[in-house]
Amino acid sequence: MFRLTNILRSAVTRMSITAELRNDLEDCANRMRISAIEMTCAAKSGHPSSSTSAADIVATLFFHEMKYDAKDPKNASADRFVLSKGHACPILYAAWEEAGLLSRDQVMSLRKITSDVEGHPTPRLSFIDVATGSLGQGLSCAAGMAYVGKYIDKASYRVFCLMGDGENAEGAVWEAASFSSYYKLDNLVAIVDCNRLGQSQETALGHHVEMYQARYAAFGFNAIVVDGHNFDELIKAFETARNTKGKPTAIIAKTLKGQGIEGVADQLDWHGKPVPEEKVNPIKARLHGSQKGKLVAQKPTDDAPKVDLHVGSIKMAPPQYKKGDKVATRAAYGTALAKLGDASPRIIGLDGDTKNSTYSEKLMKKHPNQFIECFIAEQNLVGVAVGAQCRDRTIPFTSTFAAFFTRACDQIRMAAVSFANLKCAGSHVGVSIGEDGPSQMALEDLALFRTLPGSTVFYPTDAVAAERATELAANIKGIVFIRTGRPALPVLYDNNELFAVGQAKVLKESPNDKMLLIGAGVTIYEIMKAADQLEKEGLHCCIIDPFTIKPLDEATIVKHAQRTGGRILTVEDHYPAGGIGEAVAACVAKHGIRVKSLCVNDVPRSGKPDELLDMFGISARHIVEAVKKY
Amino acid sequence: MFRLTNILRSAVTRMSITAELRNDLEDCANRMRISAIEMTCAAKSGHPSSSTSAADIVATLFFHEMKYDAKDPKNASADRFVLSKGHACPILYAAWEEAGLLSRDQVMSLRKITSDVEGHPTPRLSFIDVATGSLGQGLSCAAGMAYVGKYIDKASYRVFCLMGDGENAEGAVWEAASFSSYYKLDNLVAIVDCNRLGQSQETALGHHVEMYQARYAAFGFNAIVVDGHNFDELIKAFETARNTKGKPTAIIAKTLKGQGIEGVADQLDWHGKPVPEEKVNPIKARLHGSQKGKLVAQKPTDDAPKVDLHVGSIKMAPPQYKKGDKVATRAAYGTALAKLGDASPRIIGLDGDTKNSTYSEKLMKKHPNQFIECFIAEQNLVGVAVGAQCRDRTIPFTSTFAAFFTRACDQIRMAAVSFANLKCAGSHVGVSIGEDGPSQMALEDLALFRTLPGSTVFYPTDAVAAERATELAANIKGIVFIRTGRPALPVLYDNNELFAVGQAKVLKESPNDKMLLIGAGVTIYEIMKAADQLEKEGLHCCIIDPFTIKPLDEATIVKHAQRTGGRILTVEDHYPAGGIGEAVAACVAKHGIRVKSLCVNDVPRSGKPDELLDMFGISARHIVEAVKKY
Repeated sequence: MFRLTNILRSAVTRMSITAELRNDLEDCANRMRISAIEMTCAAKSGHPSSSTSAADIVATLFFHEMKYDAKDPKNASADRFVLSKGHACPILYAAWEEAGLLSRDQVMSLRKITSDVEGHPTPRLSFIDVATGSLGQGLSCAAGMAYVGKYIDKASYRVFCLMGDGENAEGAVWEAASFSSYYKLDNLVAIVDCNRLGQSQETALGHHVEMYQARYAAFGFNAIVVDGHNFDELIKAFETARNTKGKPTAIIAKTLKGQGIEGVADQLDWHGKPVPEEKVNPIKARLHGSQKGKLVAQKPTDDAPKVDLHVGSIKMAPPQYKKGDKVATRAAYGTALAKLGDASPRIIGLDGDTKNSTYSEKLMKKHPNQFIECFIAEQNLVGVAVGAQCRDRTIPFTSTFAAFFTRACDQIRMAAVSFANLKCAGSHVGVSIGEDGPSQMALEDLALFRTLPGSTVFYPTDAVAAERATELAANIKGIVFIRTGRPALPVLYDNNELFAVGQAKVLKESPNDKMLLIGAGVTIYEIMKAADQLEKEGLHCCIIDPFTIKPLDEATIVKHAQRTGGRILTVEDHYPAGGIGEAVAACVAKHGIRVKSLCVNDVPRSGKPDELLDMFGISARHIVEAVKKY
Repeated sequence: MFRLTNILRSAVTRMSITAELRNDLEDCANRMRISAIEMTCAAKSGHPSSSTSAADIVATLFFHEMKYDAKDPKNASADRFVLSKGHACPILYAAWEEAGLLSRDQVMSLRKITSDVEGHPTPRLSFIDVATGSLGQGLSCAAGMAYVGKYIDKASYRVFCLMGDGENAEGAVWEAASFSSYYKLDNLVAIVDCNRLGQSQETALGHHVEMYQARYAAFGFNAIVVDGHNFDELIKAFETARNTKGKPTAIIAKTLKGQGIEGVADQLDWHGKPVPEEKVNPIKARLHGSQKGKLVAQKPTDDAPKVDLHVGSIKMAPPQYKKGDKVATRAAYGTALAKLGDASPRIIGLDGDTKNSTYSEKLMKKHPNQFIECFIAEQNLVGVAVGAQCRDRTIPFTSTFAAFFTRACDQIRMAAVSFANLKCAGSHVGVSIGEDGPSQMALEDLALFRTLPGSTVFYPTDAVAAERATELAANIKGIVFIRTGRPALPVLYDNNELFAVGQAKVLKESPNDKMLLIGAGVTIYEIMKAADQLEKEGLHCCIIDPFTIKPLDEATIVKHAQRTGGRILTVEDHYPAGGIGEAVAACVAKHGIRVKSLCVNDVPRSGKPDELLDMFGISARHIVEAVKKY
């Protein structure tokens, strides 16, 4: 029955746009406008003017163009919709109300603490794939979904991303645009709701839709300008997008902010404010009378494959190193990633033109179809990965120099709000990278990744630990960071050593220990040198390698700290804030255990790794001194 | 004498490019190539191939186009040069060697720990304005310099920014491009060294120079394509740029990576590797015989005003509040910023279309010429500010929602490597913003800004403290963060209360105190409520408001902690990592003082501020419980 209706309607569309359809869509958009106004009035806050400018676009998408099942909003085969201008979510909630998924009560609970109908959308709602609200991020996520749809799922679903005009000032949009045309994502449609007005003044380009069109065209899009309040133009533009092959389409829709609201439309000073509730009356008067439910979306074509993301530990070949051999943890990461690629075709690698440094190229060489080169655009690198993990289609492992993940700090922050299953492997950490100097040295990455709620932070010291961290990362749902180092350092652990999240390794202990030394990566080797020297002088120290910095193995640390006189010295190739020292201090602070820390305290410089470890106070010599002076 | 030579040469150029000039520039470029090869051979690392592709461009700039004084590289009136592709610094060092500023010994000390001639450029060198090496950041800094030159200094100096082609994938470049054309920065020239090859593979656009040209043209530039190894074309392009008014110019220079080096030019796998030293011999053979020093740069026109950046405390009108009045700290920030604008014409404000939320609009309204609207592009917002503070031309105060400074995390990281005098005021922090939800809540900003070496982090609790923090920020050289809140809360301090960096305020103390409570901003009010209730139950607590989270007032905290049984409870509207709890724990850890912390541990949601404080465990009720259970 549904199918027949769809076929009929589809046939009609292809021939001409009827007055009935036009009226039905207009009613639908106006009912959504009314709902958006009413829900923001009830909430006493929100963005009705940003919502109503997009009402006609969203109505056309949801009730004419897109294929989805309102009863199963996360259907793997359904078209995706990303509301990059997240503050306009009232219109999205209204669309799902119109589609029958949300009840009147639900939309009217907007912004209440008891409701998932939040002020900006989050995946707490069944129909949201990625959280938005930090502007300019949606197109990267949409591009990630479209890439997976075209090249990995090889399915017919399409991806629509609705942006504001103001957010086109964000560079992340242009990273995503360049990526989308490079990979010929003809299943992706970007729509710009060009309503001229920002939060505090007119946008840089105002209503110059031709300038947006030129920019998208230059970035490789089929770029179309339409009147965003004209259903005929919108319908035709989406049809053109559907029929355009080999490149993505951008639809620049000229709109008015507050369209349909008398006295508000196209006026400044109405950003983020409810409008008087009686403004709905004139809109109601304009309804033609068609009812909710008359326009029914086309159902998705069920052609996305079933996916099992379970990787497990068995499938992966164990590490094969010889103790003492010098192997960089970044190289071991690459080896493990390639093995994960063997274990599951849904493990994918993404890199920002550093794959020969992070060693993600090992996956690319073995499984080229499981690798996405994202070029030097780290925001988009992370955004694409967040998009790629939606609806459990893939497990994305992103990699670059750890310092350059700071470029995507906001995208990573939003990935946490999206509850994303994202893996980040950052190489070249700390002063131990040497001659390239401070711009390339990650010294704040532990802080950045530790802040994220629910994240897991691995800092493997040797190659065996790095392989196991990578394997564990694939089996944890959530954001995982793996901190890998540049220098090749001796393998410490047996190939069959067992590793677990939150389980530290005690590398050295004796009944005579007078202090607990904690480090990770390169500083473990400095600690071992120092401990050997101190032992010769009769001063015994216990050494702990935490393996995960978050969560920390509090039990093991406290046990050994108490055994060694309640004295801990941490040593790390990282700045003090948010690093190992603070993590340990906070973890043991309630026990009254003393902690001192050696870490990098100034902007480093170029030099040899060993010289830098010494100049910045984290070499064996400094550890010996600190232990003696404790 | 110099002047005459310049006038003559200038006249010659305008007429035609002589064979002599062409040969002299070619020799100059080739001597620079030789030097770049030799210094990277000596260092056994570095990027000679990325350097030699740019040799002809840099030679033309430094020895034909730019006006500067090699004896006074930071001359306020001189043209600026930003090497955005920082890894190509050997060619820049070679240029300054050629110009007579660097000695042979200095350039040959490349990448040694004893040398400021680092692997990527930093302002430790007299001729570097901003550190580069994290790609795609240079154009924003250059745009900041050009904006100041055109609108604030009103001087004739010009700004040249040399980028790689690979880094044009970075969105930050397009934020800067959009900004530059919006503000008609015709004193800015962007040059793309389009050498086709990235680190690990060909760039996305390869040698399609026409695509770069289309992108820059669409972003409002006069975009010119040249052969980057043809001096006639380069000279003419720079001349066109000089004569183009009302828009910036982009010169897309088609080059070969490794140009001039036999067997290396245009080949992959030569990124970031020294070449065999004997490769210099064929280059030497191509020299026409002209000597270093033959081409002398034109001197700058001395028309940039003398600037005194001293603000002081006297000039600023003191705060004027009534205790108990409800004022948001963000509003007080705006008030203080406007007063600073009165005190000095070189105090400037920059915002990302949030000026009516951060209240930076108070400066804009009073001193429109001291305000730069940067639209929704936070990377460029920070980059422009970093450029604006170069050569002590201005003191830039940037503002946006604190959460959105994460978008510029890498730019802020690099600002620290640039030793920049940058002020960041972030509003809307924590769950206490309420209904807008987690995408808008800063809960990692303290961690981010605390990591930066040398930074100062203010967290003023009330309006008086916020005004004083802003005033102090103007008087501290370096990176300063001011954390301001959304809710209007009671004024606590007298208008003439004295505030200082690293000096905490003891808000409540008695000889009977059994615990020390530490908070800031909104949590101080919750702490005060809790302490009142606990006091009624006979449990007395000391309360400290740290004012600066970095540096922390260790002496005051330790003194009162020891007085109250060595027990501290911290309460903050921030995630645990890198926040107040960890900062305090690390600060007192060596004293064996116990610390417990209340903070936000999960992804928050929409709701009323009070409901959220309670749901996420940082309200008075939770504090009372935690104190009782300690």
